[in-house]
Amino acid sequence: MGRSIVEMTVSLDGYATGRDVDVAHPFGSSGRLLYQWHESDDALDAEAAKGMMDGTGAFVIGRTMYDVGIGTWGADGAFGMECFVVTRRPHQPVHRGPTTFTFVTEGVAAAMDAAQAAAGERAVVIAGGPTVAQQAMAAGMVDELRLHVRPILLGAGTRLLDNVGEAPAGLHTKRVTSTSWATHMSFDLAP
Amino acid sequence: MGRSIVEMTVSLDGYATGRDVDVAHPFGSSGRLLYQWHESDDALDAEAAKGMMDGTGAFVIGRTMYDVGIGTWGADGAFGMECFVVTRRPHQPVHRGPTTFTFVTEGVAAAMDAAQAAAGERAVVIAGGPTVAQQAMAAGMVDELRLHVRPILLGAGTRLLDNVGEAPAGLHTKRVTSTSWATHMSFDLAP
Repeated sequence: MGRSIVEMTVSLDGYATGRDVDVAHPFGSSGRLLYQWHESDDALDAEAAKGMMDGTGAFVIGRTMYDVGIGTWGADGAFGMECFVVTRRPHQPVHRGPTTFTFVTEGVAAAMDAAQAAAGERAVVIAGGPTVAQQAMAAGMVDELRLHVRPILLGAGTRLLDNVGEAPAGLHTKRVTSTSWATHMSFDLAP
Repeated sequence: MGRSIVEMTVSLDGYATGRDVDVAHPFGSSGRLLYQWHESDDALDAEAAKGMMDGTGAFVIGRTMYDVGIGTWGADGAFGMECFVVTRRPHQPVHRGPTTFTFVTEGVAAAMDAAQAAAGERAVVIAGGPTVAQQAMAAGMVDELRLHVRPILLGAGTRLLDNVGEAPAGLHTKRVTSTSWATHMSFDLAP
């Protein structure tokens, strides 16, 4: 089975989305500041962006992320592979070129199972939003954490690393690179 | 006037202290995990630890940090210079070898003023706890932020980067180094 990875961009104060997430502001009112690092032409930022796709066999995302994002993801659906959407509201599969969005109503564990079946030996990446990632981490279903930390303070929103369990947990640092745009950090979670 | 710097060790989920801070647990029940990086013999960790003292002319700390720390700071008082303690409870100055603890009851701004007068051209470092640092940051009194980020999740406690203002703020990344013990990050705050 492939690895399961949470990969997200966060502010230095830990927010994966700003406040007031809606279709006009998919990452919240100040959230566009989070993703400005994709404008960088620094090789380290490009490597970090490419890493999200390399070796990935399927994505898992939350329903809010789908709802606010689908209008911006274009004809190819942006993900380019199977993408499982955790939701309470049933929905027919959506096909956008190479991307298929399958809606899973039985919870995060069921979505992870479906994604792992689709991914085979490749990795499953939980790409957002923070709540889905928290549920997967709290359930011990995540092997690796990849953070792109932007040098900004958002002051409000939803933090990625909340509600992931109250017992202290040690991580193993895999790799850290840094540019003026972002610090890219990857960690193995303890088994 | 010298620079004012907030310098603190935090967990990956942003906690500067764990829960239940007391004399027996100065950084909270799981807080000793935060400072284990001082056991490292990696040159990058040693450089980061040394950086806290180099160029520093005075420290500002909170009363809780003083109360839980003073019993452990030994005959030289650990700081080796003037240290201003923000408190609501008046207290006579405490001398420990080269360290003098002066208690300031007029708030963080008054403590910063006194520390800057003592430091001259050298820097004032706010070394803990998180609440004092937050007050100084929210008041725009901080030029630089130095974080030592440990690869651990504490899950509870007091975060450093809370209550520092609700408007998004951009920082300038100065330097990032990383070892298996900690990622050391420094930022200039926007003026």
